[in-house]
Amino acid sequence: MRTTVGIIGGGPAGLLLARLLHREGVDSVVLERRTRSYAEQRQRAGILEQATVDALRAAGAGERMDREGIPHDGIELRFDRRAHRLDFPALTGGRRVRVYAQTEVVTDLIALQLAEGGPLLFEAEATGIAGAAGGSPVVHFRHEGREQELTCDYVVGCDGFHGVSRDVMPAAERTTYARTYPYSWLGILAEAPPVYDELIYAHSSRGFALASMRSPTVSRLYLQVPNGTDPDDWPDERIWDELDTRFALDADPGWKLARGPVTSKSVLPMRSHVIEPMRYGNVFLAGDAAHIVPPTGAKGLNLAAADVIVLARALAHRQRTGSDTLLNGYSDTCLRRVWRAEHFSYFMTTTLHSAPGQDPFETRLQLSQLDRVASSPHAAAELAENYTGLPLPAR
Amino acid sequence: MRTTVGIIGGGPAGLLLARLLHREGVDSVVLERRTRSYAEQRQRAGILEQATVDALRAAGAGERMDREGIPHDGIELRFDRRAHRLDFPALTGGRRVRVYAQTEVVTDLIALQLAEGGPLLFEAEATGIAGAAGGSPVVHFRHEGREQELTCDYVVGCDGFHGVSRDVMPAAERTTYARTYPYSWLGILAEAPPVYDELIYAHSSRGFALASMRSPTVSRLYLQVPNGTDPDDWPDERIWDELDTRFALDADPGWKLARGPVTSKSVLPMRSHVIEPMRYGNVFLAGDAAHIVPPTGAKGLNLAAADVIVLARALAHRQRTGSDTLLNGYSDTCLRRVWRAEHFSYFMTTTLHSAPGQDPFETRLQLSQLDRVASSPHAAAELAENYTGLPLPAR
Repeated sequence: MRTTVGIIGGGPAGLLLARLLHREGVDSVVLERRTRSYAEQRQRAGILEQATVDALRAAGAGERMDREGIPHDGIELRFDRRAHRLDFPALTGGRRVRVYAQTEVVTDLIALQLAEGGPLLFEAEATGIAGAAGGSPVVHFRHEGREQELTCDYVVGCDGFHGVSRDVMPAAERTTYARTYPYSWLGILAEAPPVYDELIYAHSSRGFALASMRSPTVSRLYLQVPNGTDPDDWPDERIWDELDTRFALDADPGWKLARGPVTSKSVLPMRSHVIEPMRYGNVFLAGDAAHIVPPTGAKGLNLAAADVIVLARALAHRQRTGSDTLLNGYSDTCLRRVWRAEHFSYFMTTTLHSAPGQDPFETRLQLSQLDRVASSPHAAAELAENYTGLPLPAR
Repeated sequence: MRTTVGIIGGGPAGLLLARLLHREGVDSVVLERRTRSYAEQRQRAGILEQATVDALRAAGAGERMDREGIPHDGIELRFDRRAHRLDFPALTGGRRVRVYAQTEVVTDLIALQLAEGGPLLFEAEATGIAGAAGGSPVVHFRHEGREQELTCDYVVGCDGFHGVSRDVMPAAERTTYARTYPYSWLGILAEAPPVYDELIYAHSSRGFALASMRSPTVSRLYLQVPNGTDPDDWPDERIWDELDTRFALDADPGWKLARGPVTSKSVLPMRSHVIEPMRYGNVFLAGDAAHIVPPTGAKGLNLAAADVIVLARALAHRQRTGSDTLLNGYSDTCLRRVWRAEHFSYFMTTTLHSAPGQDPFETRLQLSQLDRVASSPHAAAELAENYTGLPLPAR
């Protein structure tokens, strides 16, 4: 098989790239290791920045998102048992985010790609990339019981943190930056209507908590827990009680979450990871294959979208003009944004969580920072601009 | 001896308090452990916030400061071998700072107090405070070879980090927050004209450096060095070479400091320290007796000034009206500002220094933060507002 752009990974990054390339008249093939239904059910992020929303619309995948996605004009911070709302449009000159689960994004993109795009193969497991350094890399993959080859002008690794694409880059030619945070999130999905209109980020003496949502009837809730926590140690009742305790407000002692059946329960690690550069020969890395952020800043999916937006432009430019200029700028262009997001995610994470054995001095610094965000327009705007996402480089 | 306000410590905090009280018609006595000439030569800070400048003028000590002090409208940040200037008035709606060394502030205040204030005793060493919890505390001190007593309505401890005032507070009634940073500053005074108009804060792969000044002919320069550094390991030549290396710019490879005789060389520890509350009975703590910041944010002297401004108002209010309301609010009012300054100083310190064994991920976060300050108006304004100082609470 032959194509212009071989895309390894059918998550949001790979699928969005395929759609954007299709719109630009650039051929691609997407290889996804898992089944369609598995891909459609992977629980991940749910907050879309404006630039991500715009790209999904440009990819033709905006219809259901615009109908069912929930625009959010702010978030609430809780700390010191009080609440403070950040009004994003007021702080950023009109920017907002949209709550629309990654599962829905992926479902929409798959349907679209199968209806009118290039090949999208499920249960197609890439096993390696040959000739990555040279002109025409070849992706080796296993599909329908056979070893197969996909010969490409360019390969894009959208195969996540555990994918194979990264390994084509010789260790001597890449630099890895990594940080594992000393806590995890226990995340649940519950059939319970959110009693809040916007996400609530809570700093408490017992650790961080986050109230989010997937729809008007489904809550997505998170608790900071120690690394190595077994979800079975957290019966539903304990989770609800702990959430209510961490969200408690002096001014509204009766504030409680609505409870409902917990349909999913899992522990998420918190880590940062960056590979530099994001290119080796004609192989490009995008999304989680190149960088991981802790989920606190809601940046993972949006960074992946930004990568493939920049890359789709560059590949289309190459096909249209024969010029490599944009492709050559891909890694540097993306990495500046990546490091901004890494820093913001680190800031949100370390400001809101309590590290094990954290000394009281650190806690006071956290509270002073949160108090500053709640009282200084510039500090609030700095958080809001990062949260709603930086504008993409101009075309 | 009897007075309304007994002030332990004749540094800038104690002297400014005495002057402000004098203007309000409140009697005080200042006890300073050292000689006059020692007090006038203690090398400390040199950056005055607007609120500190205003208070010195209100205290009658503005004349020479206004004539000889150098207004600064910004600072320069150097990182990644490039330079970025922050324009304070543009970022803060007109606020600036003034360079006027603490030695000069102290010299002016001493002259004024001796000319027209209450008693200011040198070589008067406070040894303890009796009756701190009750109505009329008594300061025991040694002066002119005799043990003496100063009976007061109120005692204010302005005797610094190593003073005795703090010890009147029972351990069970105070909370201490402390942090020692894993690096120090090697500071020099040099008879060399500054080749720069404003302070330069430099992040470099070899550690932090700061170029400051005391006057148009005297430079004050700092290098990050390991804790435990012996200044004798740093001959002048090595210091100048290292400074030039850390300040190096790609765009101006010829940029060098002007060199001159080094007249003072010392190693300064970097630490944070806060005592809560800042009051016990009728004993109040102010300045370094209550809190220490690392010098990176230039906040130490200014925090001390803010404390005594708030306290002078409260003591005058008490004398005028008999009401304790402002005195009762002293600790909380100051501590909010103290924690803001602790956080800002921590932010400046940890953003600009390289910790021993710092992992490259942290370095990238620092550079991303500095790049953000250089490119985002809100991030720049947040730094500028903190640096130039928050407004004092309204009278």
